[in-house]
Amino acid sequence: MEDSVKEEYFKLLRFESVGADPSKTDACAACAEYLSSWFGALGFTSEIVAPPDGSAPGFVFAELKSEGESRPTVLIYGHYDVQSPDPVEAWHTPPFEPVEKDGRVFCRGSQDDKGQSFALLCGMRDYISSVPADKRVNIKVVIEGQEESGSAFLMKSAPEMRRRLAADILLVCDTSAAEGLRPAIVAGLRGVGHLTLTLTGASRDLHSGVYGGIAPNAAQGMAELLASLHTPSGAIAVKDFLAGIEEPTAEELKYAEDGSPDDEAYRKDIGCEISGGEAGKSAVRRNSFEPTIEVNGMHSGYGGPGSKTVIPSSAVAKLSVRFVPGQSNVRALDALVAYLREKTPRGMKLEISEINYGAGGFRLPLASPVFRLAADVLAQMDPRGALFMWDGASIPVVSALRDASLASPLIVGWGQNGDRIHAPDESYSFRQFELARTWGYRILEALS
Amino acid sequence: MEDSVKEEYFKLLRFESVGADPSKTDACAACAEYLSSWFGALGFTSEIVAPPDGSAPGFVFAELKSEGESRPTVLIYGHYDVQSPDPVEAWHTPPFEPVEKDGRVFCRGSQDDKGQSFALLCGMRDYISSVPADKRVNIKVVIEGQEESGSAFLMKSAPEMRRRLAADILLVCDTSAAEGLRPAIVAGLRGVGHLTLTLTGASRDLHSGVYGGIAPNAAQGMAELLASLHTPSGAIAVKDFLAGIEEPTAEELKYAEDGSPDDEAYRKDIGCEISGGEAGKSAVRRNSFEPTIEVNGMHSGYGGPGSKTVIPSSAVAKLSVRFVPGQSNVRALDALVAYLREKTPRGMKLEISEINYGAGGFRLPLASPVFRLAADVLAQMDPRGALFMWDGASIPVVSALRDASLASPLIVGWGQNGDRIHAPDESYSFRQFELARTWGYRILEALS
Repeated sequence: MEDSVKEEYFKLLRFESVGADPSKTDACAACAEYLSSWFGALGFTSEIVAPPDGSAPGFVFAELKSEGESRPTVLIYGHYDVQSPDPVEAWHTPPFEPVEKDGRVFCRGSQDDKGQSFALLCGMRDYISSVPADKRVNIKVVIEGQEESGSAFLMKSAPEMRRRLAADILLVCDTSAAEGLRPAIVAGLRGVGHLTLTLTGASRDLHSGVYGGIAPNAAQGMAELLASLHTPSGAIAVKDFLAGIEEPTAEELKYAEDGSPDDEAYRKDIGCEISGGEAGKSAVRRNSFEPTIEVNGMHSGYGGPGSKTVIPSSAVAKLSVRFVPGQSNVRALDALVAYLREKTPRGMKLEISEINYGAGGFRLPLASPVFRLAADVLAQMDPRGALFMWDGASIPVVSALRDASLASPLIVGWGQNGDRIHAPDESYSFRQFELARTWGYRILEALS
Repeated sequence: MEDSVKEEYFKLLRFESVGADPSKTDACAACAEYLSSWFGALGFTSEIVAPPDGSAPGFVFAELKSEGESRPTVLIYGHYDVQSPDPVEAWHTPPFEPVEKDGRVFCRGSQDDKGQSFALLCGMRDYISSVPADKRVNIKVVIEGQEESGSAFLMKSAPEMRRRLAADILLVCDTSAAEGLRPAIVAGLRGVGHLTLTLTGASRDLHSGVYGGIAPNAAQGMAELLASLHTPSGAIAVKDFLAGIEEPTAEELKYAEDGSPDDEAYRKDIGCEISGGEAGKSAVRRNSFEPTIEVNGMHSGYGGPGSKTVIPSSAVAKLSVRFVPGQSNVRALDALVAYLREKTPRGMKLEISEINYGAGGFRLPLASPVFRLAADVLAQMDPRGALFMWDGASIPVVSALRDASLASPLIVGWGQNGDRIHAPDESYSFRQFELARTWGYRILEALS
C-alpha cells in the first residue's frame, strides 16, 4: 500500500464516528466532510445530505458522470459510522488509533466499514485514473453515518431521491469472503430490527430482606421475560414472529453448505460450542436461513464488587432480531412486541422504546447476468473461483437503496470472522484491503 | 435533639464508610477511630479489632464495667458500615452530606445503622450519666464495619473472643418498628447469604448477524439460568434449597399478621403490585417465614443509547438468598450452586465467586423473661404496647454473637419502610432517633 493511501486510510479511522452516540455528532460530521473533500479532489460533485435539525449524522452523496454515451451507472454504498468501542478496557490498543501489527491494522472501523468501503473507493480511484472518461461507467456514491444503528435518515431519504440514486448496479463492500479469503458473492442477507425494553416493578430499589417475598424483582422479571423468547431447544418461541418464512431451495442450501466453515472451524473461531440457534439444524442453515432474536445487552441493579442486597426496581434489555425472506419485518417485530407484552410478569410495567423496524431480508436469483459477470471477475482474481453466500448479517439500507435506485445489488466483501468486527481489537489486513481494492477496480472495468 | 448530639451524629454520617468497597478502606478506618474515641471519652476501655493485613474494616470493641457486684452484662451490637450509595445520580441530595428536611435527616446511613445504633448509644450515655456506677449493668459494645457485606471478620473473630463477649442480653437496634412507629420486638430474623455468577459463552463479543444462530448468547443464557430459579407461581424451584424448613406456629403467624401492614399499605409503599414470592400466600408469611432467592443485579452486553448488535460473550449476576429456620445455610446454598451448575446452558461456562454462606435464620421463644421485660418497657413508652415481628431482613452476625456471648438477643429497632434504606434518599426522622434513644435508656435501666 502506498504511504499516501495509508495516510488517508488512517486519517479516516481516527474519526470517532460512532453514529449511534449523540456525543459523537461532531466526529461524524468531520468524517463526512473529510470524505466529501476526498471525492471533490477526484473531480466528483459531492455534498453532505443531513437532517436540517442535525438530529442524525448525514450521508455523503458524490457523483462522477461518464463522458461516454449511454454508459451504465454504478451506485457504490458504504458507511463511515462504526460500532461503539465498548468495552474500551478490553482493547489492547486505543480503539481509535490505527496500530499496525503482523500485516494488520487494529482500530475500530479498520474493517467495518471504513476499511472495506475505503479500499473499494481506492480501487474506484485506480479505475478513474486508468480508464478514459468516455469509456467509464457513471459513478454515484453514498457513504452514510448511521448503518450501525439502522440507517434511519438514509432510509427515509432514499425514496425521495429516486432520480438521483437511479443506477444499474448497487456495489457494496461490507461483508465477508469465505474461509481462507476465497471470494464470495452475497446472494442474500438477513434483515435486522431492534428495540429496547424497560421493565419496572417497585418505584425504587428495595432492601432484599425487608421487602423480599413482597416486592417484584425487575431483574428476575426481565430474566423470565427474556427466557420466554426461546424454547429449551433454542428455537424461537414467538410463533407469530416466524409467520411466512420462505425455506431455502435445495440449490441454495447446497451452495451455502459449500461456502461455510465446518463446525470445528466455527468452534475454534468463537472459543466455545456452537450452541446458538435451534438444536438439530446445521450451523449455516441457522445463520443464513433462520431468523434470530438476540439479547444484545441487559442491565439491572448492582454490578460492583461484593454484594448489595437490593431488589432492583427496573431492568433494561436491548434486543435485535434478524429477519429472513418471507417475514415481514413490521409484522414480525409487532408480533414480538405483542408477545413481550403478553409475557410481562405480573405486577410490572413494560415500556418498549427505540423500536426500529429496520428492513426485511432478501435473496437474489443465482442465475442473474450481474452475478455471472462478477463470478468471472472473481475467478480471474482467485483460481478457486467465487462462492455464493447467504450472510447472516444485514445491511438494511441495501433493501431501501435497491428499491430507490432499481439497481441489482452486487455485494462482495473481504471480511473474515477473525477480524473481530463489533468487538474489541477489530482489525483488517493489508492483504484484505488490497483484495477489496483490486475487486473495485476490476468490477468497474468489467462493467464498463 | 441537643446541638452537640446532632453534631456528633452528622459527623458520623459524613464518613463514606461503604464497608464492601475496597476504595473506602480509609473512610471506614476513620469512622472506627471516631467511634472508639467517643467511647473513650465516656470512660470505656475501647479498641479497634482489625485483621492484621488490613483486608477488611475492623470493629470497635468497648467495655464499661459496673462498680456493683454480680450485675448483668449487656452486649450492644451495631454497625458503622453502610450500603453503597449507587445509583448516586438518583439521590436528591449528596449521599454523604446529612441534610435536614421536614424533621428528617437525609443521608446514607442516617438510619441503617449509624442512625439507629448511635441513637441507642446516646440513650446508653444518658443512662450512664444518670445511674450511679454501682447500680449499672456491665456494658460491652461491638460496632462493626462489614454488616452490609456479610460481617466476615467479626463472624470469624467472635468464636475466638467468647470470654470477652460473654453477656446476658444482646441488644441490637437495626430493625424496624411496626406501622405508625408502634414498638416491635423482633422474635425472628431470616438468614442471608450471597454469591456472584459469571456465565461465559464465546471468547469475545460477536456480531449478532455474522454469528447469530451459531454462537451462544451469554445474556440470553443468564436470563434462562435466572428464570429457572422460580416456578411460574413465584415459588422457589430449587427443591433441595428448601429442605428442612420449619413452618411457623399458629401463634407466630397470628402475631406476625397482627404486626404487619395490610396489602394496600404495602402497595402504596412500593408503588406496584406486591407480586414478589409465591402466589396464594400472605405477604407477611412470604416475607417473614419463607426463604427467597433474589437477583440483586445482572449485567451483560451493551447498555448505552441506541443499539449495538452484539452477542455478549459473558454475563454477571449477583444473587442473595434469605434463609428461614430449619434451613442449613451451608446446605441450602450448596444446593443452589449445584442447581445452577445443572441448569447452566449448553455450550457455556459458569463460574461462581464471592460466595458467602452468611448465617441461617432464627426464631426466639415468645415466652422468655427478656421479652416480657422488654414488652413492659415498650408498653410504658407507647400505650399501644409492643408487637412481635419476624423481620424478613437479616443480621447474620447476631447468630454468631449469640453463639459466642451466650446472650439472649433483644432486637428492637425504630425503622420504617419509608426510610428507604439501601436505596437513594435514605432518611431517619428526629422522632425515630429520640424513640431509639429513649428505648436505650429505659431498657438498660430496667435491666439494672
